This record gives sequence, C-alpha cells and structure tokens, in this order.
Amino acid sequence: MSERIRVGIVGYGNVGRGAAQAVSINDDFELIGIFTRRDPNSDPNPLLISMDDMEQYVDKIDVMLMCGGSAADLPEQVPEVVKMFNAVDSFDTHAQIPAHFAKVDEVTKASGKLCVISTGWDPGLFSIMRVLSEAILPVGKTYTFWGKGVSQGHSDAIRQVEGVADARQYTVPIEETLESVRAGENKDYITRQMHLRDCYVVTEEGADLARIEKEIKEMPYYFADYDTRVTFMKKEDFDREHVSMPHGGFVIRSGETSNGTKQMMEFALKLDSNPEFTSSAMLCFARAVHHMSKEGKTGAMTAFDVPIGALSIHSSEKLRKDFL
Amino acid sequence: MSERIRVGIVGYGNVGRGAAQAVSINDDFELIGIFTRRDPNSDPNPLLISMDDMEQYVDKIDVMLMCGGSAADLPEQVPEVVKMFNAVDSFDTHAQIPAHFAKVDEVTKASGKLCVISTGWDPGLFSIMRVLSEAILPVGKTYTFWGKGVSQGHSDAIRQVEGVADARQYTVPIEETLESVRAGENKDYITRQMHLRDCYVVTEEGADLARIEKEIKEMPYYFADYDTRVTFMKKEDFDREHVSMPHGGFVIRSGETSNGTKQMMEFALKLDSNPEFTSSAMLCFARAVHHMSKEGKTGAMTAFDVPIGALSIHSSEKLRKDFL
Repeated sequence: MSERIRVGIVGYGNVGRGAAQAVSINDDFELIGIFTRRDPNSDPNPLLISMDDMEQYVDKIDVMLMCGGSAADLPEQVPEVVKMFNAVDSFDTHAQIPAHFAKVDEVTKASGKLCVISTGWDPGLFSIMRVLSEAILPVGKTYTFWGKGVSQGHSDAIRQVEGVADARQYTVPIEETLESVRAGENKDYITRQMHLRDCYVVTEEGADLARIEKEIKEMPYYFADYDTRVTFMKKEDFDREHVSMPHGGFVIRSGETSNGTKQMMEFALKLDSNPEFTSSAMLCFARAVHHMSKEGKTGAMTAFDVPIGALSIHSSEKLRKDFL
Repeated sequence: MSERIRVGIVGYGNVGRGAAQAVSINDDFELIGIFTRRDPNSDPNPLLISMDDMEQYVDKIDVMLMCGGSAADLPEQVPEVVKMFNAVDSFDTHAQIPAHFAKVDEVTKASGKLCVISTGWDPGLFSIMRVLSEAILPVGKTYTFWGKGVSQGHSDAIRQVEGVADARQYTVPIEETLESVRAGENKDYITRQMHLRDCYVVTEEGADLARIEKEIKEMPYYFADYDTRVTFMKKEDFDREHVSMPHGGFVIRSGETSNGTKQMMEFALKLDSNPEFTSSAMLCFARAVHHMSKEGKTGAMTAFDVPIGALSIHSSEKLRKDFL
C-alpha cells in the first residue's frame, strides 16, 4: 500500500459522523480532522477542529469531504473550501445543480483543485444508473422510486404545523406500481401511484388532532398530491421506534431492443443507515478525486465523469483479473 | 446532432444481428457494413461485406463492433482489426482476459487506435456493479447469480453425449439462496446452492434415456456439482418452446458500514433477448470509444476505464441538468 489519502470532514452532523466511520473501514484513508463551526472543545472527539483554522491544513489534507446540508451549508462552503482543497460534496438540490457546478468549476479551475459534486446515492449512484440504462436501452422508460425511508424535508414541514411537537415522515414506494413497472407494463403513473407518505406525529398537550391531520394531508406540494397516512404517537414511543435512518429505493429502466423484445434493468438499495451509506459513496469518490488530481485534472466533475475503476482501492490489473 | 458515428459489425451471428438492430434504434450511429467470412452474396442482406475487403473501409468506419465468439473468433480477429480500426468486443473467457487485454493494448498502442474489451453485461455491466459496490461497501460479500437463461457452453456439452440430437440448458438461480442473500445473511454457499441446471433434450431414435440422463448429470465441471434436471422432448416441441434467448441475473453486495448496520446494493437484469441486450451495451461503449479516440486516447480499456457519461448520447450539460 502506498501512502494513505489524508481526508478532512467539513460538518459534523449525521453524514459527517458517517464519513468518519467510513474512513475507519477503508485502509487507504487517514482522517486528519473534522471541521466544525462549534467550539471544538465542547465535544470529546479529539479530531474536531474549528472551521476558522482550516487554512493551516492546506498541506496536510488531500481531499475534503463536504458533509453539510444542501440548503444552507454547501452552496456557501464548497466554493470557499475548493480555493484550498480538493473536495467531494453531496449537493442534492436538483434544480440548483447546474449553478452549483458552474460556481465550483470556476473556483477550482482558478485554484488548480478538483471537486466532484453531488456524490452519494441520489444524486450519485442513481444518476449513474439512469444514464447507463438509458444509454443501453434508448427506447424505454426510467422509473425512480425512493424508500422506504425518512424524508427530512417532509418531516420538517410537518413540524411547522401548529400543535406538532415532533414528526417523522417515511416515503414509501407503492408496491403495486413497482410490480407493474417490473412486469414491463411501461405505463405513466401519477404522483399518488408512485409513493405513499407515512407520517408519525407527536403533538403538544391538548392539540386538535383532527385539525393537524387535515392540515398535513392538505399541505400543497408536500402532501396534497399523495395518499398520506398520519399516526399520532406518544413521545416515548416515537423516540424508541423512530431513531434509525433507513432508506433505499429503486431505479428501473424498462425498454425494448426490438419490437416486443423487453429488456429490464433494475438497481435497488436497501439501507439501514442513509447517512453512513451516503458518506461511504462520497469516500470512494474522494479516492478518485485524489488520484485524478495527481494526474493533473482540475475543475468540477460529477459522477458521470469518473471511471468506475477510479473508485476502487485496487489496481487496474487486479480489477481486470478478479472483477471483470 | 453532429455527424453520425459510422460503425461496422464483424461477425453475423446472433450478437451481430442484435448489433445491427441496436444501431437502428440509436440516432447517432450509422451502420456501414457487416463483415462476414461467408460469401456475402449468399445472404439477401445488402450490408454484408467479405471479411477480406475490410481494408477498403479504413476511412469509412469509426468503430468496429466485434461480434464473434470468444473461443475461436475474438482472440484472433480483434488484434488484427485494431491494427486499422477502433473497436469494442465482448470477450468473455474470464481466465484469458489479462492476456487478451495485453495483446490488444500492444497492437492499439502501436496503431494509435482505441479498443474497449469485454463489454456486454457479464463481463461489462456486472463487472461495473461488482467494483462499484465493493468500493462503497468494503466490508461485505458480493454474490453473482445468472439466469434464468441459456448457457451455450452447457448446451453444447449435452449435445456431445451419444444419442442426443439437440439440447438446451438453462441456468436457474436458486430462489431460496437469492432470498437469503437479500436478507443480508452473508453466508457462503456451495455451487449447488447457487444455481440449478435445467436441461431440455431431444434424443435420437431408440436412444437409452436412462444412460443419457446419467451421463449428463455426472458430467464433471458442467453438471456434477449441481442439481440437474433433465427433460426429454420431441423435436417439434423443442423447436417451438425453446427458440428465444432469454437471460438475466443479479449482482448483490451485502455489507455493513458499522457494526450491525446492514447495507444492500442489488443490480438485476431480466432480458427477453441476451444477444440484443449484449450488443446494445457494446454499442454504447462504441460511442465512448469514438469520442475518447477523438480526444487522443489509444490502447486497450475495459468498462472500468470509461466514465459513464461518455456512454450517453447526451451532452454533459444535459446529463447534469436532467439525469443527475
């Protein structure tokens, strides 16, 4: 094994913690520090470093894992960090990806750094599957299902309803539609046919449950177009039953190569921990970033620009011999 | 649309026919000719060209699709063809891939051409999934199941048995094992637990069925390690029921990102026509070869060396906007 790849983690939430865990099971990486806006002394983890001290690590870190949120953290942090470091992020606000890419590309081209944006599983792995399957089967349809898993955005939306103390929303693929897609029926489905929204809600004392349920179910964009199930729970049951962060999903391409000759490609994930899996995917893109940067590549990239072999710890020779 | 990519097909068997069909549903390709060892006038297809006339097409074809068999055709043809043309092949004799790669790499480096070897779905797509999933989940196990689908090698082996007039062997994944893998049990399975061998056999008149069944079931390497089912059929039933070439399979990676946190990645194919799907996969690698060759890349590559975006007809901008 050659020298290990030295990584830093920016952001110490669920994905940041997942990234630290991922580094610990990948022999070719070494975790140098976790950058946080909090006071690093407020946490027992000795690897915490104040965000303000990042500059001192310019020669000590090969790739930064940008683990902040897409809404507020990444659009601001990534363009700053890539002035000094190679990086990967998991920016997932789909509509703003072209703008984020342009900004990161501009900064990295100037700084001579390399950054792969929007890694993780969607965007990331699911994106790879959508492109790969459409390239092989140009005549057909692609379906993406998410879940069963927690949607942070929908959970937050429920928490905004008056009288709600806590809430969690699971996005659940509709099994009947999934089976129809797998059977190659190639239909168009409306929103309501693809996913169910399953909500677990803790209310404040004396809250009007009927009103809360109605407000959730009629909330435009988030719930109005879906079949939504609302279950009220006691706080102690909620805290016990809804701690883990499972997720998953399916990308299915159903196509024809000639008249009536059906071909089906399916990619499925079933995840006990969404943040641990997301950060594990980020980490192997960090490996590719390190090696491609050494080859002189700069600028912004996405999962579409990285050869799959570059994600692996193994040499090209070993991959051809043992994995092809 | 810029100028179309001009392709030639070498070999006019099932995969070659599938490749011609694949070109017809991909707008950015144009089929120039199909090279055959037969007399091109013996077939009504006006695109057939004698293999001996290939040199005349050096400036007229951008990429050759090498559609011959891995046993006899490709090891001989590919090193010859890549002296003059960029190419893709679907060489699938796993043990000989390193030697084939080395030979093709040597010739293409000298000729300034580019060739991606071992495209298709296994090797090819399944290889991509094995590398991708192991890179993300280094702690875990990868399982590959094939079928239900025809194995040409096993069908040929049965035809060698005395008294057999025709035969077809389907490789069938054992459902129970598949479910155990999907449940994350991460066990080791012996050969017999992974696949069943299902054989349909037409015999010559007066043949000894009991002896034939015994010989098939005890055949070393091909059948002895498997549960094998032998069904004898009349020729007319066989010809009616066993014409299509379905196939498929599964690559499943079952891993943990931390103690007890299970993560599962599954890639599945369900194919009505194995040769049409294989050649469709080859064709999008031909697209990547054409573009990478224009960028100055030469030598031999595998699916591990090609960025997924290069397989697509779409621009990087469109991929980021609509597929990420």
